[in-house]
Amino acid sequence: MSSDGERGLLFIVSAPSGTGKTTLVERLAKMVPGLRMSRSYTSRDARPGELDGVDYNFISRSRFETMAAGGAFLEWADVFGNYYGTCAADTEGILAGGEDAVLVIDVQGARQVRSRGVASIGIFVLPPSASALEQRLRGRSKDSDEQIRRRLETAHAEVGEFTQYEYVVVNDAVESAVDRLRAIVLAERARVGRMGEAARGVIETFGGK
Amino acid sequence: MSSDGERGLLFIVSAPSGTGKTTLVERLAKMVPGLRMSRSYTSRDARPGELDGVDYNFISRSRFETMAAGGAFLEWADVFGNYYGTCAADTEGILAGGEDAVLVIDVQGARQVRSRGVASIGIFVLPPSASALEQRLRGRSKDSDEQIRRRLETAHAEVGEFTQYEYVVVNDAVESAVDRLRAIVLAERARVGRMGEAARGVIETFGGK
Repeated sequence: MSSDGERGLLFIVSAPSGTGKTTLVERLAKMVPGLRMSRSYTSRDARPGELDGVDYNFISRSRFETMAAGGAFLEWADVFGNYYGTCAADTEGILAGGEDAVLVIDVQGARQVRSRGVASIGIFVLPPSASALEQRLRGRSKDSDEQIRRRLETAHAEVGEFTQYEYVVVNDAVESAVDRLRAIVLAERARVGRMGEAARGVIETFGGK
Repeated sequence: MSSDGERGLLFIVSAPSGTGKTTLVERLAKMVPGLRMSRSYTSRDARPGELDGVDYNFISRSRFETMAAGGAFLEWADVFGNYYGTCAADTEGILAGGEDAVLVIDVQGARQVRSRGVASIGIFVLPPSASALEQRLRGRSKDSDEQIRRRLETAHAEVGEFTQYEYVVVNDAVESAVDRLRAIVLAERARVGRMGEAARGVIETFGGK
């Protein structure tokens, strides 16, 4: 968390579908003061239990396309036939307010953010193994066999992009993975180039700049 | 912590005298598996309560000078008339064994380690303020007024070197400062360039390199 007019940091968390990234990041955001998720927009229908404005901002395809055409999205993608996007103004609002933002987006989205020259810290979350991911996708039984097959193919391609990220966290156990995500946020806040007003204030008491 | 023949990471913690860095790092090393302090060698006399081989390796001035002349120290310094040094073989033993090492050394020592081209991650610990440091030095009442004056002068010069470090942690409260030090260690272990066998093993299950 920053204060006194300092901009926040932008964290990006990507992971293959079914890795449990949203659960991890929701817990993380609850645990770390000054870190907020930027809620995604999607054109897909809400699944049972999902709430508009909580899980996603659910909007129509045509509304999504209008926003995309107007450059409203920091990143957006057509994933398995549905649009997903991150509103640039929402994210900017968090960062300009001095809080850190975290985006849960796929590798395509992360690539778009980087290619826009937006400073970000990327964290790639891995499942414990390819077979554990397959089990998880089958276990949640919300996809057809064909969808699961496609998700696994995509996962294989996505995992190859982990080198584009700054950090890798294996989601072997939720508590431990959240702890490591939290560690990354705290460490990035302590980097000398980004240290907050607190550290700068101390330096000043020693007559430094 | 690394395994299977991977080298450990070398952390350096520096701080002005009286900042409480040794207490912080001792707690840190107890809390984080696979992180070990490399015990310093010194020619000064043990203070009441200090144990040889626990707080320091206490050796004679002549023994210290022989070791220094033989290149046994990764870094060493004459601090207020006493020698302090880090044994290169001790540190190498920790790193080669796949554990991470942490050195509690002053800015002169940190400079020597960097100038030798040894890869390290530097953390600068700041007291809450210059006046808090002075109060602390006076409170522990083990130094004369003249020694305290010299320590404060040195502190002012040392604080100016914080930009040579990767991270800055303000020791405003011990628990919180240790938590941030721990976060830095965990985050550095999760960096994509250094990720351990665990993450590499997962990548392999996806057919990656």
